Amino acid sequence: MDTMGRHVIAELWGCDVDKLNDLSFIEQVFVDAALKAGAEVREVAFHKFAPQGISGVVIISESHLTIHSFPEHGYASIDVYTCGDRIDPNVASNYIAEALKATATEVVELPRGMGPIQLEKPKVKVL
Amino acid sequence: MDTMGRHVIAELWGCDVDKLNDLSFIEQVFVDAALKAGAEVREVAFHKFAPQGISGVVIISESHLTIHSFPEHGYASIDVYTCGDRIDPNVASNYIAEALKATATEVVELPRGMGPIQLEKPKVKVL
Repeated sequence: MDTMGRHVIAELWGCDVDKLNDLSFIEQVFVDAALKAGAEVREVAFHKFAPQGISGVVIISESHLTIHSFPEHGYASIDVYTCGDRIDPNVASNYIAEALKATATEVVELPRGMGPIQLEKPKVKVL
Repeated sequence: MDTMGRHVIAELWGCDVDKLNDLSFIEQVFVDAALKAGAEVREVAFHKFAPQGISGVVIISESHLTIHSFPEHGYASIDVYTCGDRIDPNVASNYIAEALKATATEVVELPRGMGPIQLEKPKVKVL
């Protein structure tokens, strides 16, 4: 398998506070996001913190999706990493941003497994 | 909880091929790396692919550690993301690089949850 991958790092602000604290909702959104991007889901692990906040991961055949949510700040920290060139990680991250009702996003895409990491300027979007 | 986090992205090359394909070894290294950095382990999920390669995650109270290994290329793609300023993610990523016998590493640290993502130049190290 080729080492080439695309890693989308997304900062989601102004999200719906209740959704950020709803474990079963977030788990479903992440599995759906992976499937919509055309990925194959292998492992799913989510954890709810007290008093609030959720961390979780979906391991896909093509790498992973992760979230850490901070409901009190309307903020979610998202990673979508896909190996190969068959899948566009932005499909999944855009789906998640929409599902969580983010009002501002900042997205950086890093190439992985291709030698020197090329850094591009973050894309900021106010929705 | 404050949204501030540190995300270390490490490309490990020239790793020991057998270790990259040893699920129980990698799982133990990742749990140990989290503990050595002073993190609290919450969930552990690893998956072995056929014919080779391992993907896995350790969710910690402070965020996550992930790996995708490509034994045939001696390559492992590592993320160590820690929230707050109590833990240094480099402690965990350096421990992992050493355990996998990486001979060359490339490391980028991204700040998370602090507004605009500040990109620094990757640090390349040939060991």
